[in-house]
Amino acid sequence: MHSSDKPFVFNVQAQQFPGQTVVSEKLRVTPELPLEDWTMPESGNRYLRLIAPPGGLKVSYEATVRLAHATEDPDDVHEVPPGRLPLSVLTHLYPSRYCQSDRLVRFAHKTFAALPPGYQCVVAICNWIYDNVDYVSGASDALTSAYDTIAQRAGVCRDFAHLGIALSRALGIPARYVSAYAWRLEPPDFHAVFEAFLRGPSGPGWYVFDPTRKAAPEGIVRIGIGRDAGEVAFCTQFGEMEFDKPNVGITGPADAPASTIRAVRVQDA
Amino acid sequence: MHSSDKPFVFNVQAQQFPGQTVVSEKLRVTPELPLEDWTMPESGNRYLRLIAPPGGLKVSYEATVRLAHATEDPDDVHEVPPGRLPLSVLTHLYPSRYCQSDRLVRFAHKTFAALPPGYQCVVAICNWIYDNVDYVSGASDALTSAYDTIAQRAGVCRDFAHLGIALSRALGIPARYVSAYAWRLEPPDFHAVFEAFLRGPSGPGWYVFDPTRKAAPEGIVRIGIGRDAGEVAFCTQFGEMEFDKPNVGITGPADAPASTIRAVRVQDA
Amino acid sequence: MHSSDKPFVFNVQAQQFPGQTVVSEKLRVTPELPLEDWTMPESGNRYLRLIAPPGGLKVSYEATVRLAHATEDPDDVHEVPPGRLPLSVLTHLYPSRYCQSDRLVRFAHKTFAALPPGYQCVVAICNWIYDNVDYVSGASDALTSAYDTIAQRAGVCRDFAHLGIALSRALGIPARYVSAYAWRLEPPDFHAVFEAFLRGPSGPGWYVFDPTRKAAPEGIVRIGIGRDAGEVAFCTQFGEMEFDKPNVGITGPADAPASTIRAVRVQDA
Amino acid sequence: MHSSDKPFVFNVQAQQFPGQTVVSEKLRVTPELPLEDWTMPESGNRYLRLIAPPGGLKVSYEATVRLAHATEDPDDVHEVPPGRLPLSVLTHLYPSRYCQSDRLVRFAHKTFAALPPGYQCVVAICNWIYDNVDYVSGASDALTSAYDTIAQRAGVCRDFAHLGIALSRALGIPARYVSAYAWRLEPPDFHAVFEAFLRGPSGPGWYVFDPTRKAAPEGIVRIGIGRDAGEVAFCTQFGEMEFDKPNVGITGPADAPASTIRAVRVQDA
Repeated sequence: MHSSDKPFVFNVQAQQFPGQTVVSEKLRVTPELPLEDWTMPESGNRYLRLIAPPGGLKVSYEATVRLAHATEDPDDVHEVPPGRLPLSVLTHLYPSRYCQSDRLVRFAHKTFAALPPGYQCVVAICNWIYDNVDYVSGASDALTSAYDTIAQRAGVCRDFAHLGIALSRALGIPARYVSAYAWRLEPPDFHAVFEAFLRGPSGPGWYVFDPTRKAAPEGIVRIGIGRDAGEVAFCTQFGEMEFDKPNVGITGPADAPASTIRAVRVQDA
Repeated sequence: MHSSDKPFVFNVQAQQFPGQTVVSEKLRVTPELPLEDWTMPESGNRYLRLIAPPGGLKVSYEATVRLAHATEDPDDVHEVPPGRLPLSVLTHLYPSRYCQSDRLVRFAHKTFAALPPGYQCVVAICNWIYDNVDYVSGASDALTSAYDTIAQRAGVCRDFAHLGIALSRALGIPARYVSAYAWRLEPPDFHAVFEAFLRGPSGPGWYVFDPTRKAAPEGIVRIGIGRDAGEVAFCTQFGEMEFDKPNVGITGPADAPASTIRAVRVQDA
Repeated sequence: MHSSDKPFVFNVQAQQFPGQTVVSEKLRVTPELPLEDWTMPESGNRYLRLIAPPGGLKVSYEATVRLAHATEDPDDVHEVPPGRLPLSVLTHLYPSRYCQSDRLVRFAHKTFAALPPGYQCVVAICNWIYDNVDYVSGASDALTSAYDTIAQRAGVCRDFAHLGIALSRALGIPARYVSAYAWRLEPPDFHAVFEAFLRGPSGPGWYVFDPTRKAAPEGIVRIGIGRDAGEVAFCTQFGEMEFDKPNVGITGPADAPASTIRAVRVQDA
Repeated sequence: MHSSDKPFVFNVQAQQFPGQTVVSEKLRVTPELPLEDWTMPESGNRYLRLIAPPGGLKVSYEATVRLAHATEDPDDVHEVPPGRLPLSVLTHLYPSRYCQSDRLVRFAHKTFAALPPGYQCVVAICNWIYDNVDYVSGASDALTSAYDTIAQRAGVCRDFAHLGIALSRALGIPARYVSAYAWRLEPPDFHAVFEAFLRGPSGPGWYVFDPTRKAAPEGIVRIGIGRDAGEVAFCTQFGEMEFDKPNVGITGPADAPASTIRAVRVQDA
């Protein structure tokens, strides 16, 4: 490695788990370079590292993914009481860099206390965000956190997800950030949603929520999961560089229905 | 002045202006010390400085104050459009240490935009604070600002006033902090309210608001006015010392009515 | 005033006081509009309001200003102990929106405690800022405060002044923000410096400091003074509009010396 | 589980890994209750959940632990360049709730750039913290973060560790929070230190640092590791309760040396 070479870590490949099958995928890097890949056991995130020489670098990824998210009746999806939460999801109850649930406990309880803390409560959180926060490109930046968004009331998908996560955690509901490809998102782009840990007819599991209402939850292709956006950057770079705007395109079957009234559960274990 | 002597600046005396007459007052300092006093022209705040030797210091202030606040029909109290605001109140439109109106513009507009920006709008701000922020001693401290309170949703009179000021300014309504003695406040203590600049039947002027609903606005005895609490400390000290809890008592005429549905205007010029 | 007309308040004219004489000035507004002007007694800031119809607005201001700032030997400029501070400068000891001196007390004492709190101490603050904060356009924005700058270590003249003010106040030295035209500033632009209240050979007064080292203190033409930048905007607007970059040019006598080792005192009263 | 029963999750047991052997341990809960335990694979943290009926609950834990931390010559411990970092430690490069490395990048580079980013650089970070931050009980609280500490300059072991972590990550060095029992800590209490990921003579691994200088790194008994204190609470409770001050006692062999000039590496894999 020359001193001017720069390492990059990408997290752009679709995860693989029972409910999300990567039927085929093709990753191309120009110029051609050795790639190191690794899948994190606790998250399923797929990392790809390369060392790039000075000059332009182009990464393209194309995949066909089959989703088998379960849809359930929201009335059947309930809270998991803290005495029964799998201890492995405990980390998703704690505050993180952009989701300061520790500072939003009173707000969350005042605003959502009347609701039982199950699926409908997370829906109420999403509705509150949709009604009270404006989706405005450029209104937030990489330092903006849920604590800011609750006062400043503007942001993009990342900020909407952070606020949903922070409010869920503040109510005792484990929640995590999901970077994704999202079918029917207009214009096509990387997307961010969140998952909350609830208990449905087939037991406890993770359910998808999109407070921006910009994408259909059953068309979410999961790339990375983490405490918040800080942990699932599409690209982690070391050193300075310039990025072109990513070019994202997503297509789905022409006849696929998009439900907005069913709970969407990710079949990930 | 010996090096162990310590200067103190007090701002505990009732202001004097047409609507607030100090009929009599007695200020006693134990031990007896030379006092320097000064009234700030732009605020009417009365400052008192003394240099205290080491050991205990006791300041007691007793006054009889006659209030002649005007009460008006809220429907007659309107916004002053920015093109007609006296330029002398412009400073009360700007953000201050604990009232970051610059960060709350969107929140304020989203929440109160449907209302015309006059008396009823400031009432709506006060109602919102009363409904959404819990009055909890110890939930905030000297560093807590309106930006924190809007997310944390708990505080004391100081925090309620800061939030009322910040939201008013964010809507283009000049607002200022008032430290006060408050008749009917239970338990008796120093109090904090705020004033907003509006236009009533007799022209533009300052109207009192108490989002805690703990005191009757027509029984507010103004001590100090400033951008926020940072400018109207009851005591500014230089060096370290310990304070006893202040002992405050307020009595009013037995038969005085307390109105909550009239606009209370301070007759201060 | 039509509903589409917009009020603007400008604060771009040079102040007038014994040490700063406006020999001549010409203010032109295009299109021609009625102007309302007002000078704030406690600051000397000159405000100018106009109501602009939709469409472009151009304001040009040209002035010849004679400065008679005193220069003194730094060794003769000392702290004013709190027991002797004029009570009228007390407001410049308190924290403000962008100068949170209340949160920087320990930092200030740890970093500058070894110095006597007079002129040399404020110089040490300026040197510390110059050495530890990078001057980077675009690294800060209108919400950036001294509390951010001390951690993020980058900013522009406004941020440098805010940090100088916050640290001075944290040490008990009254300090205020000054918007200015600055001779020898390259490229010419509006500038921001700060003044600290100290005691020189002729008594207590305000001394100019520029922690950016971009302008000569004796060539500072004061426009506005305030708690911080929040109070001395060049233009306060009401409603949305677009601004062109201001065009500023400053010339001085060809042979004027620029001293960097003398204390510069503003002769303002 | 009755509705008045309350779940608690404890993380107080010593971890088990090659360099830290739990020779014997005894955990007693009064009243006697069923215990559920689980060890998190990615951290080795040992969690213990119980459901407590109303009334007092007492948890006591006693263990004999044999430590075999390696000590190495600091000059042999170097940075792992980003191109060679195991991808599994990437999460410890990202900002977290109390370690906002994303906001401290410039500060870290300005302050520590002259040093090569290996062991000596992390020592320099610890020395800077020790020299510039006061250890003051009560100066910080559960909401205090590294961003606050860098401006406010006071805190306890938790704050010292957070700042060490944030600055290390800002320089590209993976770092994580460690809750611990600390031999020779006076008075005995739970302690917090941090580990940085570096490369020593036997390859890359985690090295212990204690910027408070209150405990000997080779006497650190690791309890939990996490992004920051938010993830390694000694007790996570659900609902309100009162805590007694924990009672901690630690003894070591009478003749054990305490080195402060050797790098201490944790043998954890």
